[in-house]
Amino acid sequence: MKVLVLGGDGYLGWPTALHFSARGHEVAIFDNLCKRQLEARVGVQPLFPVQLLQQRVKTWVALTRLDIPLFVGDLLNHRAVYHVMESFVPDAIVHYAEQPSAPYSMRGRDEAVFTQHNNVVGTLNLLFAMKRFAPAAHLVKLGTMGEYGTPNIDIEEGFIEIAHKGRSDVLPFPKLPGSFYHLSKVHDSHNIMFSCRVWGLRATDLNQGVVYGIDTDETRRDPRLVTSFHYDELFGTVLNRFCVQAVVGLPLTVYGEGGQTRGFLNLVDTLQCVELSVLNPAAAGEFRVFNQFTETFSVLDLATKVQTAAAAIGLGNVGIQHVKNPRIEAERHYYNPAHTKLAALGLKPHLLSEVLIDDVLRRVKDAKQDILLDTIQPRTPWRRE
Amino acid sequence: MKVLVLGGDGYLGWPTALHFSARGHEVAIFDNLCKRQLEARVGVQPLFPVQLLQQRVKTWVALTRLDIPLFVGDLLNHRAVYHVMESFVPDAIVHYAEQPSAPYSMRGRDEAVFTQHNNVVGTLNLLFAMKRFAPAAHLVKLGTMGEYGTPNIDIEEGFIEIAHKGRSDVLPFPKLPGSFYHLSKVHDSHNIMFSCRVWGLRATDLNQGVVYGIDTDETRRDPRLVTSFHYDELFGTVLNRFCVQAVVGLPLTVYGEGGQTRGFLNLVDTLQCVELSVLNPAAAGEFRVFNQFTETFSVLDLATKVQTAAAAIGLGNVGIQHVKNPRIEAERHYYNPAHTKLAALGLKPHLLSEVLIDDVLRRVKDAKQDILLDTIQPRTPWRRE
Repeated sequence: MKVLVLGGDGYLGWPTALHFSARGHEVAIFDNLCKRQLEARVGVQPLFPVQLLQQRVKTWVALTRLDIPLFVGDLLNHRAVYHVMESFVPDAIVHYAEQPSAPYSMRGRDEAVFTQHNNVVGTLNLLFAMKRFAPAAHLVKLGTMGEYGTPNIDIEEGFIEIAHKGRSDVLPFPKLPGSFYHLSKVHDSHNIMFSCRVWGLRATDLNQGVVYGIDTDETRRDPRLVTSFHYDELFGTVLNRFCVQAVVGLPLTVYGEGGQTRGFLNLVDTLQCVELSVLNPAAAGEFRVFNQFTETFSVLDLATKVQTAAAAIGLGNVGIQHVKNPRIEAERHYYNPAHTKLAALGLKPHLLSEVLIDDVLRRVKDAKQDILLDTIQPRTPWRRE
Repeated sequence: MKVLVLGGDGYLGWPTALHFSARGHEVAIFDNLCKRQLEARVGVQPLFPVQLLQQRVKTWVALTRLDIPLFVGDLLNHRAVYHVMESFVPDAIVHYAEQPSAPYSMRGRDEAVFTQHNNVVGTLNLLFAMKRFAPAAHLVKLGTMGEYGTPNIDIEEGFIEIAHKGRSDVLPFPKLPGSFYHLSKVHDSHNIMFSCRVWGLRATDLNQGVVYGIDTDETRRDPRLVTSFHYDELFGTVLNRFCVQAVVGLPLTVYGEGGQTRGFLNLVDTLQCVELSVLNPAAAGEFRVFNQFTETFSVLDLATKVQTAAAAIGLGNVGIQHVKNPRIEAERHYYNPAHTKLAALGLKPHLLSEVLIDDVLRRVKDAKQDILLDTIQPRTPWRRE
C-alpha cells in the first residue's frame, strides 16, 4: 500500500513511517519541519538529539534499501498539499501534522489562534486535496481522548445512541474539550465527518490516549533513528515527564489531587493501532471513530508506579509533589471510555508494567546530563489571572 | 446599557443597532464593511440600494439626535478588536460579524477556508479581547438552527440530559451541521463554551432559524435607513427569495421534494430576541443556548403560502418548480426543536400570516425593475462532481 505520513518528522510520525516501510509498504513523508522552530521559540528541546530528517531517511535507506521520499511542505499551503496528493496518490494518509500541545495552545492569543488556524485550515486543505486528487484514499486522522473531556457517563467510540422523549438516534458523542488544542481536534472531527458525508471520503478518527515510550523495533536498529522525546511542560506527556523527574531526583509533579484519570498507551501500540486502521480501511463515505488506548490510570497512580520502578533500579526514594493544577479540569471524576474496536481488529496491547518503565528510566538515565531542569515545571495557566 | 454591535452593517446588524439606539442604549458598531466586496465578487446585490453606513448613521442622528459611533475594523485584526473593547467597554456585545452564507462556503476551497478562518479566528480574537478588556461583558452570539441538522429526536436548547448505561449527564446537544458555514458556527460554539468555563466569561448562543422580512419600526422611519435585502442563491433566505420569484412571475424553486422543515422568524422578532437576551444576561461563567425561531414550516408549505398571498394581491398564478437539490440534506425528516427559553423571557412572536407576506410582496413589487433574475437559481452544488 502507498502510505503518506503527514507530520512524519515528529514523535509519532517518524516511527510510524519506519513501521510501514519495514512492513513493505511504499511510504512518503510530508512535513513542514516546523517543530524545531516551535521548540526554539519556547526554549525546549527533545532529550535525545534528533538527526535531520533527511539524514534519518539516509540511515534507514542504508540499513534497509527502502527509500522514504520526503515532501517538505506546509498543509497551510494548499498547492503543496495538492502537489503531494497528485504525485504520490496515496492509498492511506496518516495525519499527525498538527500543533500537538494543549499547554502551548493556552499560552495566549497568538498560540491559540496559531493552533486552531494551523490544525483546522491545514486539515481543510487536506480534505479538498483528497476530494480532488485521491477521493478513494483512506484518511487516518490522529485525534485525542481529550476531545471527550470527562462526562459522567460511559464514553463511547465517537457515536452514542440517545433515547429521548420516546424516540432515538445514533449521534456524534458530545464533546467537552479542555483547551484550544483539544478544541481544534473537535473542529477537525466535525469537518472530516461532514466531508465523508457529502463527498464520500473515507476516514478513521483515532481518539488517542496519552502516549509514552521512546523506542520501537525500527528506531532500535540504529541510535541515529531515535525519535523526538519530550519531557517539558509543553510537549512532554506525563509519564515521560515523571521518568525524567525520577532520574534527576526531583519530586514527580502531580497537578492538583492527581485523581485525573486518562487512557494511556505505549508508542509501539500507537503504531499497531494506526497499522490496523490502515489495513482495515473505512468504507467510502464512512467516518468511523476508534478510541485508541490500552489502559486507564489516574495521574497519582502513574506517579506511584514510577516511584516504585525508580526505587527498583536504584534511583532512590523519589517524592511526589502536588502542585497547583495549571489546568481547569475535574480532579475526581467518573471515567469509563469504551475501547473495543481496535481490539476487535486484533490489537495486542503492550501494557504498562514496571519492566517498561525500567526501560524508559534507563534510557533517560544515559542522557541525564542533557536534561533541562527549568523546562519541566508548569508555567502555563488555563485560568484568567 | 452600552451595546456593541459587531457586523452592524449587515441585514440583521444594522436594524439591531437602530433598535437598541431607539430604546435609549448607548450603541456602537464594529464592522469591516466587507459585504460589498463579497457581493461584488459573486455578482449579486441587495434589492434596495443600501446607503453607505456613515450616511445611514447621519440620517439616524438627524432623525433622533442619537449618535452611533462607528469603528471600521476587522475581527481578524486583534489590535482593532482590542482597541474597540478598551475604548468602548461594552456591557453587551451582539456578534453578527461572520460570513453568513452556507452556499458561499460550499463554492470551493477558498470560500470554505475563508468562512472558517474568518468566523472562527475572528471569534477567538473577540474572546481574547473580552478576557483582557471586558471580562464582565455579555456576549450575544448569533448561531444557527442549522448547527443541529435534523436528528431523529427532539432538538433541545443547546444541552440534553443523556441517560446511558445506568448513569446520566447533561451534555452539549450533538451537532450535525450541513455546510462549512454551519460547521464554523459549531466550532464557534465550542470555543465560546470553553472560554466561559475557563475564564468566567458570560455568553448567550442564539441558534437562529431562517429570517425573513424587510422593515422594522426604525428602518421604516426613513427610506434611507433600509437594510440589506438579499434574494440571490447565496445570501438570500428562502422566503425572501420566493417573494421575489412571485413578483417577477417565475416559479418558486423548491429544492428537491421540499419536505425540509426549518424554524423561521420575522426580522422584527430577531431584534426582540436579541434585546431579551441582552436585558437578561447570562451569569458569569455561564454559556447558555436559546433556539431562536417562532414557527416551523416545510419549504413546500412556505411556497404554497407565497403562492396564495401572491394570487390574493393580483400577481396571478405563481407556479412551484421542484429543482434538483444542490444541498445534501434529508428531504423528509422528523423535526421538533424546543424553543421555550426566549418565550419564557417574554418573546411575543410576529407569526407568518398572509398579511405579512403581502407586505414583503408589495415592497418587492415596487423595486421589480432592479431584480437580477440570473442570480436566483442555485449554482453551488454540495456534492463532489
